[in-house]
Amino acid sequence: MLINKDNYHTIWLNEKSRSSFSIIDQRLLPHELVIMNVHTSDVAASVIKDMAVRGAPLIGVTAAFGFYLGTLEASQDNFDSYISTVFKKLAATRPTAVNLLWALQKMKAAADGVQGIDQKRNAALQCAIAIKNEDIEMCRMIGVHGLELIKAISKTKNGEPVNILTHCNAGWLACVDWGTATSPIYHAQKEGINIHVWVDETRPRNQGANLTAFELGQQNINHTLIVDNTGGHLMQHGMVDMVIVGSDRVTAQGDVANKIGTYLKALAAKDNRVPFYAAMPVSTIDWNIKDGVKEIPIEQRDQNEVKYVSGKHEGKIKEVLICPETTPAANYGFDVTPSRLITGIITEKGISPASEEGLKKLYS
Amino acid sequence: MLINKDNYHTIWLNEKSRSSFSIIDQRLLPHELVIMNVHTSDVAASVIKDMAVRGAPLIGVTAAFGFYLGTLEASQDNFDSYISTVFKKLAATRPTAVNLLWALQKMKAAADGVQGIDQKRNAALQCAIAIKNEDIEMCRMIGVHGLELIKAISKTKNGEPVNILTHCNAGWLACVDWGTATSPIYHAQKEGINIHVWVDETRPRNQGANLTAFELGQQNINHTLIVDNTGGHLMQHGMVDMVIVGSDRVTAQGDVANKIGTYLKALAAKDNRVPFYAAMPVSTIDWNIKDGVKEIPIEQRDQNEVKYVSGKHEGKIKEVLICPETTPAANYGFDVTPSRLITGIITEKGISPASEEGLKKLYS
Repeated sequence: MLINKDNYHTIWLNEKSRSSFSIIDQRLLPHELVIMNVHTSDVAASVIKDMAVRGAPLIGVTAAFGFYLGTLEASQDNFDSYISTVFKKLAATRPTAVNLLWALQKMKAAADGVQGIDQKRNAALQCAIAIKNEDIEMCRMIGVHGLELIKAISKTKNGEPVNILTHCNAGWLACVDWGTATSPIYHAQKEGINIHVWVDETRPRNQGANLTAFELGQQNINHTLIVDNTGGHLMQHGMVDMVIVGSDRVTAQGDVANKIGTYLKALAAKDNRVPFYAAMPVSTIDWNIKDGVKEIPIEQRDQNEVKYVSGKHEGKIKEVLICPETTPAANYGFDVTPSRLITGIITEKGISPASEEGLKKLYS
Repeated sequence: MLINKDNYHTIWLNEKSRSSFSIIDQRLLPHELVIMNVHTSDVAASVIKDMAVRGAPLIGVTAAFGFYLGTLEASQDNFDSYISTVFKKLAATRPTAVNLLWALQKMKAAADGVQGIDQKRNAALQCAIAIKNEDIEMCRMIGVHGLELIKAISKTKNGEPVNILTHCNAGWLACVDWGTATSPIYHAQKEGINIHVWVDETRPRNQGANLTAFELGQQNINHTLIVDNTGGHLMQHGMVDMVIVGSDRVTAQGDVANKIGTYLKALAAKDNRVPFYAAMPVSTIDWNIKDGVKEIPIEQRDQNEVKYVSGKHEGKIKEVLICPETTPAANYGFDVTPSRLITGIITEKGISPASEEGLKKLYS
């Protein structure tokens, strides 16, 4: 997608040497665009650990390219033991990211599947490229399917914009291109549909204000930033036509774990008969659990993310304290939206009702 | 209530000279405690206009004392015309504050009711003191009634804390003492009931983080600051026993206008069978309107309140930008919670169902 009118992916191999890759340092967005070159598997691990890259799909792709750099660092003599260390180092960067482990296992299998160091390096390279391309295609297809929903609403609006509310950043910056929740929006833009996006700032980390507002602005999509408290009021007054959010985990019965606050927006959508969709690849579905509210453990994060807000002051990024220094704070990362509040699940395989029967049909 | 273990009101007459009054400059809370002396009606107008004092009740009391200072500034010759100017000046500081106008009209009637400049000054002084004392008593009685609700829940908790969620600051800092939504909490503390308060930070202006967290901390009440997105998750998991919020306006049928985001918490409370109360003096009831969602106009405020966050950095209060500079933002100040989501209305006259029939009975 576009940044400063140039087309970007969130990660790319440096084609000349094929011995390094580049990422966008997302910690500095939206205030600065800094491209980091990653030359070693150690640096690859640190850009994941230090959250220069974030979003499950992008973390997986970054780990894959990091693993590939590991194969370049390994020698004929120590290949297997070196690669095993690289695997563990990358896997340890974000221990709860399922996608990260999946990508590393795929990379290891590719390297293990061939003989000879050059062949192993090449197999790793091809696998990393494939993982990246699969992510792009998956996000593209989420957009192709989601577009139909926006098109249908657009037909009822007589040229007025379709108002879409989104929470957090399930955008291309969390993936390689297109994004998940944003992919239908970008596809609607390409079709010339008049759209406007309400962007929840998404406290405590403000991924909506920092990243989604940045993405949409760069892509020249009409949007308005709001505080997380606002969505209910907008829906009461007919100012939202649909909600699209991403998801970190979907249960077998269609409950959706996503950034804290998603549940509140789903309640407001239900109360005002606004369709509420979650968009994600089918790999996000966890068939081992049913009741998301009961079964999904919710990560508690550092309370300083609540007590401090980061932003730009006189050209520099600074943190300000918004409460008394001694105030205790709690920071729950996610919540679970029960399937009864969800109109549909948008995946690369199609759109499904939020139910076990519906989700299973995606595979048929 | 307590600040640094001393008892304070938000406003007080300087008893020796009776020619000035003092306020707490709330713009600097919680980071600095600055007491401002107000010696003239001009300064009184500016502390209201510049929001050194805020909260409808406190604005009314401040205007009353400002009017009293005006009677000291007026001379025998120009009394009526001077006082008329003072009235207009104070009334213009926050044009939408109904309570402000009510207090000024009461002050003017008191001065008009007697002959002679000394008598007028004295009548104004007595009236301002009465308005202040009435507010304290009203807030105290809200607490006396609301306490019974907390007591009843406490009996079911086997010594575990009663978890109360509140939104924004309807605390003593918005009034003179006790507060509205906080008054039942402070009364429960005096009764020795084990309580814990979840404090919504309340973006965009963070009155929860800045003021409610400060109040409760100073009063040594167990509390935890959360982002506005969190309440739904807590209620799903049985971590909230009741919600108490304030209100800016209650309609004849019991719809409650309050700080933006209140409606979302009320939806979550309903979905999880958590009792949801709004606390306010009966003067907040507007008998001229019924359907709050349709009839109450919602003020839109400066979009920079959304785009910038204020807090302390290296000992100084600074503002940081949390989105791209060019991002458009919308800032709706309030929302309306329909009466069907409200368990009860707590007033100084007792507790009522959120219905026309219930509210009318408060007067019988």
